[in-house]
Amino acid sequence: MRKQLTVHTQSHDYPIIITSKSQMAVEIAPYIKGKQVMVVTNITVEKLYLQDLLTGLSEQFEVHHVVLPDGEQYKTQQYIDRIYDALMDAHCGRDVTLVALGGGVVGDMTGFAAASFMRGVNFIQIPTTLLSQVDSSVGGKTGINHPKGKNMIGAFWQPQMVLADMHTLTTLPKRELSAGMAEVIKYALIMDVEFLTWLEDNMADLMGLDEIALAEAVARCCQYKADIVAQDEREAGKRALLNFGHTFGHVIETHEGYGQWLHGEAVAAGMVQAAKLSQQMQWISRDDVDRICEVLQAAQLPIVPPAIELTTALDLMQHDKKVKSGQVRLILLKSLGDAVVTADFDQTQLEAVLNEHV
Amino acid sequence: MRKQLTVHTQSHDYPIIITSKSQMAVEIAPYIKGKQVMVVTNITVEKLYLQDLLTGLSEQFEVHHVVLPDGEQYKTQQYIDRIYDALMDAHCGRDVTLVALGGGVVGDMTGFAAASFMRGVNFIQIPTTLLSQVDSSVGGKTGINHPKGKNMIGAFWQPQMVLADMHTLTTLPKRELSAGMAEVIKYALIMDVEFLTWLEDNMADLMGLDEIALAEAVARCCQYKADIVAQDEREAGKRALLNFGHTFGHVIETHEGYGQWLHGEAVAAGMVQAAKLSQQMQWISRDDVDRICEVLQAAQLPIVPPAIELTTALDLMQHDKKVKSGQVRLILLKSLGDAVVTADFDQTQLEAVLNEHV
Repeated sequence: MRKQLTVHTQSHDYPIIITSKSQMAVEIAPYIKGKQVMVVTNITVEKLYLQDLLTGLSEQFEVHHVVLPDGEQYKTQQYIDRIYDALMDAHCGRDVTLVALGGGVVGDMTGFAAASFMRGVNFIQIPTTLLSQVDSSVGGKTGINHPKGKNMIGAFWQPQMVLADMHTLTTLPKRELSAGMAEVIKYALIMDVEFLTWLEDNMADLMGLDEIALAEAVARCCQYKADIVAQDEREAGKRALLNFGHTFGHVIETHEGYGQWLHGEAVAAGMVQAAKLSQQMQWISRDDVDRICEVLQAAQLPIVPPAIELTTALDLMQHDKKVKSGQVRLILLKSLGDAVVTADFDQTQLEAVLNEHV
Repeated sequence: MRKQLTVHTQSHDYPIIITSKSQMAVEIAPYIKGKQVMVVTNITVEKLYLQDLLTGLSEQFEVHHVVLPDGEQYKTQQYIDRIYDALMDAHCGRDVTLVALGGGVVGDMTGFAAASFMRGVNFIQIPTTLLSQVDSSVGGKTGINHPKGKNMIGAFWQPQMVLADMHTLTTLPKRELSAGMAEVIKYALIMDVEFLTWLEDNMADLMGLDEIALAEAVARCCQYKADIVAQDEREAGKRALLNFGHTFGHVIETHEGYGQWLHGEAVAAGMVQAAKLSQQMQWISRDDVDRICEVLQAAQLPIVPPAIELTTALDLMQHDKKVKSGQVRLILLKSLGDAVVTADFDQTQLEAVLNEHV
């Protein structure tokens, strides 16, 4: 089983290879330009896949590695310094290739280290979580968190290739599989109601780790995102739709502390909030909202946010990146499969949705 | 007195406005897109120009500022965090414009903060030193130092405009004026022997802070650099010529400790060493070398390096960023106004030059 798609970006085109039980080193070697390789991973993924990758690469390359702790709370300046330090200690030069072996945190940090080491070096992504396979494979977003906000420091930087191996999902905790599925469902809600039907029909197979079904879902999501991003690399318009559920989700994540709610879980509950506000606007029906809740629940995702004081929630919302000159903008659903960015919502209705915790 | 030139880059074109006694706020306001402005400066420049700029901008914009300590030793992760913190505390969004008011350190840090805050926001440069006016106005290099190497973390990021006000040079310490003049002389040596003649004729006026002469020199240097960079935004070939004198200078700076010799002073002595090696190659004459020494001395710059053990100097040279696969590459003069990058020099002749300390 093997699928391949090409992502077009302003700087260059690159492939996403979707496969299973691959020899990772063999797959990525053709995309490494220089002699030096720095593999970045975390302590969890290290145990599963690092040694094989290093051994495979070391036949052709001078291979170094750095292992980070596992968790969103380490996606910080302090831990990206570990990557810089490893690069400096290994005397890496401008032709080094960084390889991100892990989930979204490893990918975002490795990507930003690649973007900023010597003002930019090559990198390759091997995403090992469903979330990172569908979300980080396309778009070139890299970065770290600031104590006062997620992903506040970063860069747009495109990989040389992405290797998504479905077999890595068999070692993923179920809760993280669900969290990744939230983003899969997001694509259906903002882009394609037909895909929503497909997901409803195939959710049992997906959650049962059927690799054919997973590959189909990952390929579809990457293609949706690639289509959006090709039009709009710097997030002027359409790309913002990818943040459906995220403004609400950021409030949850920030308030609860990173790591308590997984990103995908917060996005799931956030999508329900966005859907409810869309219903208040009379764009979608109560039945549509129920359908969203059901597919999320089939993926074992939460649909109710934690209790957060309204004033706190509104203040946290002000820190969202989509705020323009103090004006909060939200992504809402015109219908299932069709999202819009808007600042034109009723503040009272927003507050009613934020106040609903049951 | 007013000159303007346009710099073409891959991402966008921008103007460099060269003037004197300008109302800074009036000059930069047309290039600020959103409502929010964050001015970054240091404690030295703050006292001279900050209040006027803030007052002028505050009529039209929501203006914030952050003041950094003054010096290369603060060009670090720790101090760029102060800029991020100020941006977060002020609830700045994606349409914020950062304004760098100061010399090269402020410009490099502000530029990198702009490149990396929310994955890239606009910035404007108001360089207040001769060095930053001729060196940092063009090229898009931004960044900070790593404990193990200068400028190791950074990005290519282009400003929206550059305002170079010659009047700011009247408040610059004389030693820093000279250091900046080393880079001015560098452009003549690598690009244009006619400009060398012009500098010889006008050095007294330049050192006497004649604003017409300074504007002419700054405009010429920015144009030379713009011509080089437009061809070669990512430093593959021609851009390397801008490092004339810098490999030798790097040895001096590293050996003496940064801050003891100003960068421009080390480059001045380094350019004399590069010229002497070019003479050994029989590319330029003894008279040419004398002419270089004289114009540097007219700018009150050192032409003799400190005594450094040959083995130490050779070792420090190996750490230069232009080293490829262990092979030292130097920028040498084929003739006055014409430089080349070469690894094809006689090691004995290089050692003879390095051994000459009088």
